[in-house]
Amino acid sequence: MPRPSPETQQGIGPAKNQVEVGMANSDLEFLFHPKSIAIVGTPSDPSANQGAGVFLDALLEFDYKGHIYPVNPKISEIRGLRAYPDLMSLPQTPDHVICCIPASLVPQLIKDCASRGVKAMAMYTAGFSEAGEEGRKLEQELVRLAYQGGIRLIGPNCMGIYCPSTCLSYNPLLSREAGSVGLLCQSGGVSLGLSIMANFAGIYFSKVISYGNAADLNESDFMEYLAQDNETKLIGAYIEGVRDGQRFIETLTRAAKVKPVAILKGGRTKAGAKATASHTGSLAGDEEKWSAVCRQAGAVQVYSSEEMVDFFEICLHMKPLKGQRVGIIAWGGGPSVLATDDCESAGLVVPAFSAALCQEMRSFMFEPGSSVSNPVDSPVLANPSLLSRAIKTVADSREVDVLIMRLPFAVARPPFDLEVTVATLEAIIETSKSIDAAVAVVQPHGDTPESSGQFLGVQQRCAEANLSLFSTTRRAAQAIGRFAQSISYLEH
Amino acid sequence: MPRPSPETQQGIGPAKNQVEVGMANSDLEFLFHPKSIAIVGTPSDPSANQGAGVFLDALLEFDYKGHIYPVNPKISEIRGLRAYPDLMSLPQTPDHVICCIPASLVPQLIKDCASRGVKAMAMYTAGFSEAGEEGRKLEQELVRLAYQGGIRLIGPNCMGIYCPSTCLSYNPLLSREAGSVGLLCQSGGVSLGLSIMANFAGIYFSKVISYGNAADLNESDFMEYLAQDNETKLIGAYIEGVRDGQRFIETLTRAAKVKPVAILKGGRTKAGAKATASHTGSLAGDEEKWSAVCRQAGAVQVYSSEEMVDFFEICLHMKPLKGQRVGIIAWGGGPSVLATDDCESAGLVVPAFSAALCQEMRSFMFEPGSSVSNPVDSPVLANPSLLSRAIKTVADSREVDVLIMRLPFAVARPPFDLEVTVATLEAIIETSKSIDAAVAVVQPHGDTPESSGQFLGVQQRCAEANLSLFSTTRRAAQAIGRFAQSISYLEH
Repeated sequence: MPRPSPETQQGIGPAKNQVEVGMANSDLEFLFHPKSIAIVGTPSDPSANQGAGVFLDALLEFDYKGHIYPVNPKISEIRGLRAYPDLMSLPQTPDHVICCIPASLVPQLIKDCASRGVKAMAMYTAGFSEAGEEGRKLEQELVRLAYQGGIRLIGPNCMGIYCPSTCLSYNPLLSREAGSVGLLCQSGGVSLGLSIMANFAGIYFSKVISYGNAADLNESDFMEYLAQDNETKLIGAYIEGVRDGQRFIETLTRAAKVKPVAILKGGRTKAGAKATASHTGSLAGDEEKWSAVCRQAGAVQVYSSEEMVDFFEICLHMKPLKGQRVGIIAWGGGPSVLATDDCESAGLVVPAFSAALCQEMRSFMFEPGSSVSNPVDSPVLANPSLLSRAIKTVADSREVDVLIMRLPFAVARPPFDLEVTVATLEAIIETSKSIDAAVAVVQPHGDTPESSGQFLGVQQRCAEANLSLFSTTRRAAQAIGRFAQSISYLEH
Repeated sequence: MPRPSPETQQGIGPAKNQVEVGMANSDLEFLFHPKSIAIVGTPSDPSANQGAGVFLDALLEFDYKGHIYPVNPKISEIRGLRAYPDLMSLPQTPDHVICCIPASLVPQLIKDCASRGVKAMAMYTAGFSEAGEEGRKLEQELVRLAYQGGIRLIGPNCMGIYCPSTCLSYNPLLSREAGSVGLLCQSGGVSLGLSIMANFAGIYFSKVISYGNAADLNESDFMEYLAQDNETKLIGAYIEGVRDGQRFIETLTRAAKVKPVAILKGGRTKAGAKATASHTGSLAGDEEKWSAVCRQAGAVQVYSSEEMVDFFEICLHMKPLKGQRVGIIAWGGGPSVLATDDCESAGLVVPAFSAALCQEMRSFMFEPGSSVSNPVDSPVLANPSLLSRAIKTVADSREVDVLIMRLPFAVARPPFDLEVTVATLEAIIETSKSIDAAVAVVQPHGDTPESSGQFLGVQQRCAEANLSLFSTTRRAAQAIGRFAQSISYLEH
């Protein structure tokens, strides 16, 4: 995919034939391996400036191995690093420039970068196309200057790159652990919140790109990059507007054939779409059209950061599904009923068991209050060996493709404490190894340190055992539905 | 409302004219004030029996003031209390009997209760209409015997009554603190999980009734009771099936005119409906018909225990809304866009501000990256006094009815730790006192003890200041939508 000239990008000017110059997208690899970084506009007191101040702290916190050049004419040293008055005075050409200076000063900086041979810039600076007509013109000017100078721009109005494997980060709060989730995000706030939420759930990233106004590099470039990136096994995207619709559809279609892709669309509603204009200068487009694009391309849609994290969770831990038939074990009649409703509402099927299977279940599950069909519920499930037998009996029948095991609410006091829960969990984990059906665990819990502490204990064991964990049956059911949909798109 | 004879109840036999005997529903008050309780079938080792064992422990834990009579012929003493071999040998007639003996022994117990003049029984025992034809017949027999003996039955297949103000509880895990939420619940598991989740959120109950198969006292009886109960300010209900449709519609309509009522329906889907049959022997009915009933009666529908707790939260803390126009302040462009989508998806309106209001906002909110219209977003909102000014300016314009303030994700590390959050929160709390618009706070957080600990800190301040708190903007938006709907049904 050749780099388009700025004029071909929607939102900048009318589309023309693409100019066959510039870099192919696999060349974007260089963005994630800079040997030196200049932070132009490093604040004199980074701690007092939560915006631009975090970039330097993030690189130091991540123990970035290359050279860091803080640029600020008012200081000579910061955080033990020598500061430089301007880009031209740096002792070497930085591979990457993070731009935090006011919008009006950016054109000159790009010229300086071009004259020194800088190849990449991440522009934190805001006040461009999202800020009205004047900003839109200034943004066009940047793109023109960068294009002339052979510089690729991320942003403006963005946080840039988080790539833990090369110690790149735009925020010290992010995890240093690298994983296999790729995320492209038109909002810095969403990328930060979503990444931290995922980190808390034990989910880690290969690359996260916060790309803001997408003046030069856009959603299609990053989607294409992540689709071919070997470190990335699945892709999430928060997108407010698309620069080149046709190219995006083609890129998304190719990506969804090789990796699961989930999209969180910002601006689905009328007022939301209006808000995207003042956020990233995006034209959000029509919700129905957008849904059709995702369906056609093979990407699944999620509707919140939480649902995105759930999608990551299930893609990382669940074995491929052969169908959408769910078996439910939920420790309690009402929770079983609600779990069944959640599954069917998510498009899954909760089949009644065959007479033969019911009879087999009844042979060890005969106490009053037992339901031997689907959803399964019985007082005997408090006994781990009978629980194992129930799981194995249901799975071996091949009447379901996936089991949802909904544990009792995490109270963190007997009898609903971690000790009893783990005994149950170990039976689930051990049995899951010898069955074909996939297994999802649900551990409902409260917003208290004790209850969520218990959840964390369950989370750790589930992660070690490679079982997906969710906090409600609805979230589990929705994730399973999306996972089934997503793997049906993959080329095998 | 006279007590119907058993034959008038659907699911037992064809409806006949009601017999004008028995107690009016306000008479159900006696259920919540027993001076003595017999637990028939107290296990010899309560700790080993998580089912029937909890009743005795719950009453002891709650420091129940009346007499407790454990009944079990195999023991003479338990937990320091004298145990009795059977009901007939008790030194006095208990006001309330909790029945935990096997189903086949229950008819004789009811006869004994009748001969001793017992007025109320809560039947934990399962194995009745939910267990097939034989159980259905046995359940009919119980109802007939109880009716003849002048005994009101709760259940069977239920947990009975939790009423903290009179130290009644069916589980020691529930809070001893009394509140103003009434809950009727066809599932013991849902009632326990939902109540504990609410307790964790600082929400407490007047009365919770787990009523299982509803063989005698049913959803209409308890709805009617809670509607007239002075200790109950709002009502939640988990219902799988309705015994007498016409009476329920009338009761629900009357209740929703005097208090907010939310209903969580179990068995909304085909497979879910099938599951209710084996859980409480209920005929779940058709989802569309059910939604029409709720709409017509003025009850709002929720679709999970979490949404029920959110409804309680907003009814308890939010001032009455004059309309559904929402102003959003969300600290970040992407989160603002998503919050806007959440609001509009929940049926709320996020209006663009008038030119005059935008101009006023711009006078102190001019940094690049600021959005002075709705949703409001600006770096200056990090300054508490400018935040206050923004809130007051928006509220005083009367262009919105409610403000959603979405705080940054709770990381529990600087700059997103409790200290900074509380400074922001105090500005919100202080300003909210001098404005007409209602305010909801959103504090997104992770499932870690640190992050949820920070959430708890925010929760405590919000509760003290009487502000509603939610963990996602979607949950806030849905709760606001339901609250607006609910108060529109109330008779003023």
